Amino acid sequence: MTQISEAKQGKITKQMKDVAKNENIDVEIIRRRVASGKIVIPFNSIHSPKSLGIGKGLRVKVNANIGTSREHCDIKEEVEKAKVSMDAGAHAVMDLSTGGDLDKIRTSLLKTVDVSFGTVPIYQAGIEAIEKRGSIVDMTEDDMFHSVENHARQGVDFAVVHVGITKESVRRLQRQKRLIPMVSRGGAFHMAWILHNEQENPLYKNFDYLLEIAKEYDLTLSLGDGMRSGAVYDSNDRAKFQELLIIGELVEKAREKGVQTMVEGPGHMPLNDIQSNIEVMKKVTREAPYFVLGPLVTDIAPGYDHFVGGIGGALAGFCGADFLCYVTPAEHLSLPDKNDVREGVIATRIAAHAADLARGIDRDVDFNFSKAREDLNWDEMFALCIDPKKAKEYREKRLPLEDTNACSMCGKLCAIEMVKKYLKEEVKTLKKLLSYINNFFDYTLI
Amino acid sequence: MTQISEAKQGKITKQMKDVAKNENIDVEIIRRRVASGKIVIPFNSIHSPKSLGIGKGLRVKVNANIGTSREHCDIKEEVEKAKVSMDAGAHAVMDLSTGGDLDKIRTSLLKTVDVSFGTVPIYQAGIEAIEKRGSIVDMTEDDMFHSVENHARQGVDFAVVHVGITKESVRRLQRQKRLIPMVSRGGAFHMAWILHNEQENPLYKNFDYLLEIAKEYDLTLSLGDGMRSGAVYDSNDRAKFQELLIIGELVEKAREKGVQTMVEGPGHMPLNDIQSNIEVMKKVTREAPYFVLGPLVTDIAPGYDHFVGGIGGALAGFCGADFLCYVTPAEHLSLPDKNDVREGVIATRIAAHAADLARGIDRDVDFNFSKAREDLNWDEMFALCIDPKKAKEYREKRLPLEDTNACSMCGKLCAIEMVKKYLKEEVKTLKKLLSYINNFFDYTLI
Repeated sequence: MTQISEAKQGKITKQMKDVAKNENIDVEIIRRRVASGKIVIPFNSIHSPKSLGIGKGLRVKVNANIGTSREHCDIKEEVEKAKVSMDAGAHAVMDLSTGGDLDKIRTSLLKTVDVSFGTVPIYQAGIEAIEKRGSIVDMTEDDMFHSVENHARQGVDFAVVHVGITKESVRRLQRQKRLIPMVSRGGAFHMAWILHNEQENPLYKNFDYLLEIAKEYDLTLSLGDGMRSGAVYDSNDRAKFQELLIIGELVEKAREKGVQTMVEGPGHMPLNDIQSNIEVMKKVTREAPYFVLGPLVTDIAPGYDHFVGGIGGALAGFCGADFLCYVTPAEHLSLPDKNDVREGVIATRIAAHAADLARGIDRDVDFNFSKAREDLNWDEMFALCIDPKKAKEYREKRLPLEDTNACSMCGKLCAIEMVKKYLKEEVKTLKKLLSYINNFFDYTLI
Repeated sequence: MTQISEAKQGKITKQMKDVAKNENIDVEIIRRRVASGKIVIPFNSIHSPKSLGIGKGLRVKVNANIGTSREHCDIKEEVEKAKVSMDAGAHAVMDLSTGGDLDKIRTSLLKTVDVSFGTVPIYQAGIEAIEKRGSIVDMTEDDMFHSVENHARQGVDFAVVHVGITKESVRRLQRQKRLIPMVSRGGAFHMAWILHNEQENPLYKNFDYLLEIAKEYDLTLSLGDGMRSGAVYDSNDRAKFQELLIIGELVEKAREKGVQTMVEGPGHMPLNDIQSNIEVMKKVTREAPYFVLGPLVTDIAPGYDHFVGGIGGALAGFCGADFLCYVTPAEHLSLPDKNDVREGVIATRIAAHAADLARGIDRDVDFNFSKAREDLNWDEMFALCIDPKKAKEYREKRLPLEDTNACSMCGKLCAIEMVKKYLKEEVKTLKKLLSYINNFFDYTLI
């Protein structure tokens, strides 16, 4: 019993109802898109998170990656980061821990996180292989499947599986001669394993077995982007598209078997490659939900990669990406702390909202905010803005001294105030305009 | 003798040569584009700034706005902000002061700033009218022209003139019923003046006289975006396009008379309106250089508007905008301080560079950076990145403890390190690849 298998039988689950309500879309549309795999609802009943819909016609969602590393491991800090992520508005949280007691960290986080929760099971399999047998390449097939099942049994809602890293795509990567061959950690685990053992990726070879595990827990599979480009120079190359073609086939297989899947993408990519990447991905997967990291539209801005990823994420969302994985300012430099996590979530929420607006979603949010701005109603602006705390700090840093309700940038020369005085007639008609607004926004572009 | 009049006569100035060299483009192409008004070089010989080319085929440039307000006025702070702007890489600085001794502030800044320097002369005319006669609407025609000439005589390189705010465009604005009728300060001055005095905008009516002044000093006119939208709801509306049609006619007149012009745009605008806005602007002005503020792709993120403007600016640059006016995190909230100025310049430089990459410019910059990343050569990465100070701070905050040259996010699980070990053959071929690179990037998309 998975969301997709229920939907295929014409049944509407509580989660589909929640999604329909949250997104203000007819539940029958939601059901049909879940059935066809165009929307996923990552929901493992053992964890039972808030219902989250990802995919066609829905708002663009934001994921926050947290987790320890071998370099820095503090469970309390990770729990704190999870809370910060949710407070800042992340729709999902992923635990990418690679240091410390991984099961303990995961179960602690699962208790804290009430939104959809994702992991990358191959990390644990690889790390335990290092501990038990000395090297990642000594992972057994059982280690890999066991790790996926272990996570699912603990309540994980969605898990990354790098099933597109195969002998075929690795060969294509070797011929590609990339500037940076691979930056995906999970992808690198699998490639090393394939090359060292001269065998096919077990998760690909025995994909049916993976689907059986996923189906039992309704674990949504996020088909990992092991070949994502780590430099704009390498973007949209043959290696990446080869992986995508393999993934496209697996998506269809999963749908047949009643398993929910989404597909991961980009990495580093110049702005001019984003639209084609997303259009091709949507074609070859028959509109699977697209979970993108970044895209990072330049390589040269470490310290600002939340912003670099936000530029790419906004355009990606506008072009059809469904789920944005945040990047923090610490990306490429160090493990993020909780402030970095907050910055990352906010930047990515702005990008997601910009994409929504461009797709005709939530325009009333900006309308209401700007109505408050026209009225210079600061309390209302703070209530409606994306980060009231920061906005208040800026206004209070330099309050106007003159007798004006404007801000200290213009004071009494505020254009809004001036225009009100000299364009009174128009101000009156604005009041009328407000009454039209409910009708005007009573539609959703799909 | 202006850059455009020289170019029309087939003459190549020192400034054209500098631009050709900086941009790595044949000087004859630069000359032809200056002659046809597709490139401007704002250069008043009284100030004699570094040569800056703005327009077709050139890198996207960044402008930083500084200046006092009636609320906060400290010359030293403004001089400091100008220095911070230039250190952070701004290509031009504009003084938008509205408080204190405006001539003194401007002449101080002109001494400090060695890049192109812009102003909005109508501010001074309006403020002096308030002081002398009680109200902005009591400005005389002479006040307006006098202010432009005064700025030009002091050495200003480019000046904003709101010549598209006319009886015709104001009437169209009244019929438009906007959410926020007008947010341009200079635009509001002119609209108030037109409505109160029931007369045509003198800068429009006597545009020929304005051109005479501009020609004498080779003052580049930046045709102001008085009708820019202040809410995404109001974007790309009839009022805005009416102003643009008027401006398009004036651009052609200025070119005939040998005066350099650029055109200002956007404001608040959802992502889906940006491409059409820029394409229409480029058509109706026959490819005048486009100087854009933002565009701000959502209204609801005060405190982050440098980032919101960066998202819009990156896409705008990719679509053809030539010159990005930064926005600081303080926008809409208070007068920015020097830290805000720095954040604004860096964010906008990232956007401009992302646009350049998408247009095929400066790809070798990212290639060289990513080569250093592949080599985990941190010194080289810091040397090549956009803000070395910030990047170093992040890396040093949590240096790896293990014996690895990677960062503390992955430590010994660094994908780059792993791949090197298992994909040795490919690493060797990468060395060869480097020798191709000079040839590969030896072109410019125009």
